[in-house]
Amino acid sequence: MAAEIDEQPAVLANQQAVALGGIRSVAQKIRDADPRFVVLAARGTSDHAALFAKYLVEVRLGLPCGLASPSTLTGYHAHPRFDRVLWVSVSQSGASPDLVESTAAAASAGALTLAVTNDPASALASASHLHVDIHAGRELSVAATKTYTAQRQAMWLLVDAWAGGDGAGAANVPESIRRVLETCDVGALAARYRFVDRVVTVGRGFSYPTARESALKLMETSYLAAHAFSGADLLHGPLAMIDEDRPVIVVTPAGIGGDLLRPVLARLRDRQADTCLVGDRDLAEEYRVTTHLPIPPMEESLSPIVQIVPLQRLAHHLAVARHHDPDQPRGLSKVTETR
Amino acid sequence: MAAEIDEQPAVLANQQAVALGGIRSVAQKIRDADPRFVVLAARGTSDHAALFAKYLVEVRLGLPCGLASPSTLTGYHAHPRFDRVLWVSVSQSGASPDLVESTAAAASAGALTLAVTNDPASALASASHLHVDIHAGRELSVAATKTYTAQRQAMWLLVDAWAGGDGAGAANVPESIRRVLETCDVGALAARYRFVDRVVTVGRGFSYPTARESALKLMETSYLAAHAFSGADLLHGPLAMIDEDRPVIVVTPAGIGGDLLRPVLARLRDRQADTCLVGDRDLAEEYRVTTHLPIPPMEESLSPIVQIVPLQRLAHHLAVARHHDPDQPRGLSKVTETR
Repeated sequence: MAAEIDEQPAVLANQQAVALGGIRSVAQKIRDADPRFVVLAARGTSDHAALFAKYLVEVRLGLPCGLASPSTLTGYHAHPRFDRVLWVSVSQSGASPDLVESTAAAASAGALTLAVTNDPASALASASHLHVDIHAGRELSVAATKTYTAQRQAMWLLVDAWAGGDGAGAANVPESIRRVLETCDVGALAARYRFVDRVVTVGRGFSYPTARESALKLMETSYLAAHAFSGADLLHGPLAMIDEDRPVIVVTPAGIGGDLLRPVLARLRDRQADTCLVGDRDLAEEYRVTTHLPIPPMEESLSPIVQIVPLQRLAHHLAVARHHDPDQPRGLSKVTETR
Repeated sequence: MAAEIDEQPAVLANQQAVALGGIRSVAQKIRDADPRFVVLAARGTSDHAALFAKYLVEVRLGLPCGLASPSTLTGYHAHPRFDRVLWVSVSQSGASPDLVESTAAAASAGALTLAVTNDPASALASASHLHVDIHAGRELSVAATKTYTAQRQAMWLLVDAWAGGDGAGAANVPESIRRVLETCDVGALAARYRFVDRVVTVGRGFSYPTARESALKLMETSYLAAHAFSGADLLHGPLAMIDEDRPVIVVTPAGIGGDLLRPVLARLRDRQADTCLVGDRDLAEEYRVTTHLPIPPMEESLSPIVQIVPLQRLAHHLAVARHHDPDQPRGLSKVTETR
């Protein structure tokens, strides 16, 4: 896991070099089909890459977009009307039977189907009209890291190409991750959380999927009860369970997402929550948070690809500090087959 | 909260008597408009009623459907293409500014908008083309209960009318809830969970929104770290954090949803998890679960309206056992205004 975290700058730079052409050609086929609605289907970590893509599709393309409930197709055998729908399945392995089956069902219902996977020979890639290979190289750790950032960057490049961009906006992403890996020290935070049993992670807008993914990493590797909320949803109920003994990690992109989190940071300060802010230094100082993991300034829609990195490292450090094996979490295997 | 839980049979019977005509007339207007996509917008408890509606729309109507990320409209000011889109906002109070604003934005982008609220004079009802009044009567407890089942039944009746039904399928729902209230004893379970700090709730398909809502009720009233998963997502990572000291509540509808949960029940048994099953007796016996809250047999798409009831009561009992005030959870108010 540690090696794969460190590999990410190289993986993302390589993806920009070798995969962009294929991504642009897929984007052109999607533009030609002119879908009116996008449905994203994924599980686990890939579901958080799909959620990131949902924000991109809605904000950059203005298309209505939903996350699939695969069971409606595979379990309840719904007969949907899917013409003018783009169905995007996201899966590292491309092997989960429910995704393969629901993708085939979406195609028979009239959808254009696209698989985003790390294996062009996978069942999911074969079952789909279009395929984007994220080119992350083989991932050995059960806890996905480099395939996650590779999925995210691939989705960003795809939506960018679909919107008419040339992908140049993402050029600095590998270097930003390299800088975070060189400068961020999560040792003190891992020590602070050594005996923590539950943690809440919070994001809003583009940073919400990062809150979800960091919670999953902490659950998978350190068996913490890590619970992610959108900042708005947190205020609609779950805030009640937060007191000074429940640490909170707030992921704030620069720009609009950061501003949307201001009321949340204020309420957490009022409740004397032990808050770690991942993001901008100014916000960290203004709300006098307990700890701060700085992220270099960057365009908001790209910041999630970088912001997850110190949190991946935190999950790894915490697992090691607790004498768990982050590469082989109990009860899990690399490819999860659900139906 | 206890009084409002007990009021639910009367509230739902009254809704069938007084609101069905209005719901059918709204459904006819939607049929005339023939939308191709449905977007649901809500927060907190209402978001779980919206998620229930998503399953209904996908399974009974075969329409692609998504849950809105309101911040893309209100924060990031996306300019969506929403013609042939039905935008449904669900809110007990109809007062949250982000829902009012995103509904107005959806309408200017071409969507047909419908508000489902408990207040026909609310800002959200006024901002929408169509309105369904759930007729639940005033709700005083901060933790929503009767408005939740009333939202669910109203959504069921709406989708049923949209699909050409006459609403008769729901006739027995009030009586089923009355029976559950009379027979279900959550005292032993509340005692068992008295010192629990974290709990996982699980559902799949139609029972997944119930898992989400019961987790929220436990967080709001008892300050537990209650974490809901779809059965499929649980196997993709979070299963690692479950051991014999983390109680799990599995909500199983009869029929397909129950079958989809069989692999989850088997894995939980393998991990010796302390499992409470809410649903069918046969499944409870087959997987030798620790505790069982029985639900009378009923049509699967209606079962969520009933299955939440014993879990509402569990949340109430647990709060009282912990000397919390379930009517006034710390840090919350009845109407949450997020932007």
